[in-house]
Amino acid sequence: MRIALAQLNYRIGDFSENVSKIIRSLKKAEDEGADLAVFAELAICGYPPRDFLEFDDFIAQCYNGILEIAAECTGIAAIVGSPSVNPSERGKPLYNTAYFLCDGRIHGKTHKTLLPNYDVFDEYRYFEPNRLPYDIIEYKGRKIAMTICEDLWNITDDPLYVRNPMDELIKLDPDILVNIAASPFNYTQPLTRFGLLKKNAKSYGLPLFYVNHVGGQTELIFDGGSMVIDALGNLCGELERFKEDFRIFDSAVLGSTAGPLIPAGPSITLIHPALVMGIRDYFSKMGFSKAILGLSGGIDSAVTLVLAAEALGAENVKAVLLPSRFSSDHSIRDAKELAGNLGVGYEIIPIDNAFRSFEDTLEPQFRGLEFNLTEENIQARIRATILMALSNKFGYILLNTSNKSEAAVGYGTLYGDMSGGLSVLGDLYKTQVYELARYINRDKEIIPLNSLIKPPSAELRPGQRDSDSLPEYEILDKILFQYIENRKGPSGLISMGFEESTVHRVLKLVNASEYKRYQTPPILRVSPRAFGMGRRMPIVGKYLS
Amino acid sequence: MRIALAQLNYRIGDFSENVSKIIRSLKKAEDEGADLAVFAELAICGYPPRDFLEFDDFIAQCYNGILEIAAECTGIAAIVGSPSVNPSERGKPLYNTAYFLCDGRIHGKTHKTLLPNYDVFDEYRYFEPNRLPYDIIEYKGRKIAMTICEDLWNITDDPLYVRNPMDELIKLDPDILVNIAASPFNYTQPLTRFGLLKKNAKSYGLPLFYVNHVGGQTELIFDGGSMVIDALGNLCGELERFKEDFRIFDSAVLGSTAGPLIPAGPSITLIHPALVMGIRDYFSKMGFSKAILGLSGGIDSAVTLVLAAEALGAENVKAVLLPSRFSSDHSIRDAKELAGNLGVGYEIIPIDNAFRSFEDTLEPQFRGLEFNLTEENIQARIRATILMALSNKFGYILLNTSNKSEAAVGYGTLYGDMSGGLSVLGDLYKTQVYELARYINRDKEIIPLNSLIKPPSAELRPGQRDSDSLPEYEILDKILFQYIENRKGPSGLISMGFEESTVHRVLKLVNASEYKRYQTPPILRVSPRAFGMGRRMPIVGKYLS
Repeated sequence: MRIALAQLNYRIGDFSENVSKIIRSLKKAEDEGADLAVFAELAICGYPPRDFLEFDDFIAQCYNGILEIAAECTGIAAIVGSPSVNPSERGKPLYNTAYFLCDGRIHGKTHKTLLPNYDVFDEYRYFEPNRLPYDIIEYKGRKIAMTICEDLWNITDDPLYVRNPMDELIKLDPDILVNIAASPFNYTQPLTRFGLLKKNAKSYGLPLFYVNHVGGQTELIFDGGSMVIDALGNLCGELERFKEDFRIFDSAVLGSTAGPLIPAGPSITLIHPALVMGIRDYFSKMGFSKAILGLSGGIDSAVTLVLAAEALGAENVKAVLLPSRFSSDHSIRDAKELAGNLGVGYEIIPIDNAFRSFEDTLEPQFRGLEFNLTEENIQARIRATILMALSNKFGYILLNTSNKSEAAVGYGTLYGDMSGGLSVLGDLYKTQVYELARYINRDKEIIPLNSLIKPPSAELRPGQRDSDSLPEYEILDKILFQYIENRKGPSGLISMGFEESTVHRVLKLVNASEYKRYQTPPILRVSPRAFGMGRRMPIVGKYLS
Repeated sequence: MRIALAQLNYRIGDFSENVSKIIRSLKKAEDEGADLAVFAELAICGYPPRDFLEFDDFIAQCYNGILEIAAECTGIAAIVGSPSVNPSERGKPLYNTAYFLCDGRIHGKTHKTLLPNYDVFDEYRYFEPNRLPYDIIEYKGRKIAMTICEDLWNITDDPLYVRNPMDELIKLDPDILVNIAASPFNYTQPLTRFGLLKKNAKSYGLPLFYVNHVGGQTELIFDGGSMVIDALGNLCGELERFKEDFRIFDSAVLGSTAGPLIPAGPSITLIHPALVMGIRDYFSKMGFSKAILGLSGGIDSAVTLVLAAEALGAENVKAVLLPSRFSSDHSIRDAKELAGNLGVGYEIIPIDNAFRSFEDTLEPQFRGLEFNLTEENIQARIRATILMALSNKFGYILLNTSNKSEAAVGYGTLYGDMSGGLSVLGDLYKTQVYELARYINRDKEIIPLNSLIKPPSAELRPGQRDSDSLPEYEILDKILFQYIENRKGPSGLISMGFEESTVHRVLKLVNASEYKRYQTPPILRVSPRAFGMGRRMPIVGKYLS
């Protein structure tokens, strides 16, 4: 049997577009002699549909889409993911379903058993887990076991779920294992995912056909990485990462022991294309084309600008230099040089007039009081007001340039530099931003070296440096990583050798900044634990703060 | 047996405070001759603890707290809610547990079976549902069935869960039913909750002792409403709403058929004290005392000011009038009059100088272009910058004054009037804000009548009225309510009689504003469906937009 894997970039709730896309791939598969085409989990509506699933009309449109696709399945069969209605009076109203379509109709279906409800996932919010006995699809003399994403992820020493679907399905003696997925990217995920799929194929002795989503969905980035693994656990082939792709495999194919095409070297080689796709899809799916950002001469805005120019084209990106009385000459020089290197248009809009007008306006209230954080924040907010004015007047989307270290400790101004439609670097620690800058410069100096070597500064008061307020990033980032990604508490951190007072200070900063992060833009997620929907903390509380 | 209900206001993660509070009530109960004191669900750590539950140290502190309380249970028993570790290798790592403490130790426990994971609830993110056979607590010759909140909520015609704990527990022949809860307020909840508890008591023929949380936890407001219902379904007594309270009941008490003390009349009589408590607890638990807000002369900021003055004391609230060239004289007059009526200090800070400086600054970019939304937004952002500057300089927290109608259709400026630490009215439609204003004025004119009768306007350009951009609020709010609270889609709305083009326009506005709401402050939740954690929508998507 010949099986086509169709790795597509869906748009949430855009039924006509998603259905057309699926039917086009189906026709291509049929033309190229495939017997079966496999599409991703919830392909019909895009992932994650979130609370749209609570609208009857949305669910009806999903079902109509499935019927439309089924009608095209005459010379070929298809497996397509969609929500479906739970006919029972008991339990949640929906299932997360894999439909098997052939002979112009719905031939069979399987509901997802294991519903991820951690990190960025909320599936138990909407779906009833499958409790029915499993069924197997018989098609062209083969027995196909259909599973949906998480259904294969319970094969660990420390299983999150009581039930393991494959232990039941294997009893029905399948020939082929199919898994349709919506497995978002983080820099550890490609290897983890391959390891897990390999383990399934090998343990159950079945060839595994795996189809994932590709594309950016606001904060979530789907890298694709659809693949086929033979019954010995060897990779037979995989689809391109970070792109729509399509490939046909023979079900009897045998793989090689080589691993998947995950770029060698550090995770930055995966993060780079992920962020570019994340920006590109945010804009194209929102119907926007032009980005604007404040270019300071520092490393964060430099890296953001490079990624934006790559994603949207240099001609669609506008850089704005917003010097204040505290901006250094080298900052302006570095910013101009970068814009020149990229061919990005820039403007210089000094903020000092506006700053003086706020000083005058607030003189009756502030008379005799010292310059402090208040005045620093005013400058940051003037910059945001100017950038948003340009955005409003000319239709740009403002890109936020904050990094994860700043977001973590609250080193940023709400309604100032924390503004924007999308945060590009908000899931990269400062040290990772440097790493990405060096990666961008690997062949030639795109980002001026000076931006890479000068000490980080917000330049909001004379001689200011980040290290005046924060531990050095080399230490800070390590503590943050252990606390945020690895969930280490204070005693765990101290026993790892971090200085006690620094640990308490950092954790306190993180927990006391929850109110700020609540109001920041969506952050492109590239790590196993990003700020946003995957990390849910109380604002009002008193723990480690 | 004499049973004390302790309805307390916990602080999330503040173990020493929560444990002391519980022990103080325990001692009081013992002194007053109670045999058993009952505390709320997850009382030990406060509710909702959210991802703090993923920290081993947090869970260890919960357990230590339980042991500390158990040690005090010598002359009395206690039921206390806490997370507990799932000892099995399979399933999620925690249970949501009710501990029965007596004789100085843990005498028994029950894990929650039904884990709410809809609306504002994420319990399946953290907890494994109980799958063990039920147990009953024998104490002083009585058999007590312990249940946790949602465990009693599956007694409907359309059950959300497959299992119904009470159908199993009742086979063990209990004498007394205890339910410990974390049931947040919305204006429909007090009656719904009573109806449901009554149905349980009556159906299973058991007296029911119910203890809920009270207090504000960022956006969630817990109204308390702890109560006792006899085996016939009659109310025996209830604790005060929106306050900490404590009362001892005899397990053999018989109630009367009168319902609970829910204020007669419209829901506004519940919403008013809920919002006051929500503000007060946000400030006291964050360690702040002083609020600031922009007072425009319009109805939203007027109502917010009244509530803030009631919650924090007039002396702790500062009103700032921020007139522009478009502000009308009556607006300034109305604002001053209100501040005078409340005894709230105010300042007048005109924004025109700052506005002119932005016009000058942006003159090279904007030359020859018309005044439009951009200039309106600049004014709103100047106001926010001034308010935040006062907040930063003097330690005020900025209260956001936006209402739910505006938030729904995106009629507001991000980083402008959508700023603030807490949104007070963000879960009240504009028509409800008027209703609340009339309620505030029920005995005397506190809010100037003029603010109530003039047509709503943002006053950001000459002669502007909300109705220039939006349908009249009487229509708009009805459509929004059906779409947001009742999940009606376009065809449902049209068949209810709303005009087709208005329906499409409104739904499109709502869906296209998702990116704005993502960045707004936490909103005090008083309705069954508030913006925020209880409503999760994709930003990038194409459904009804």
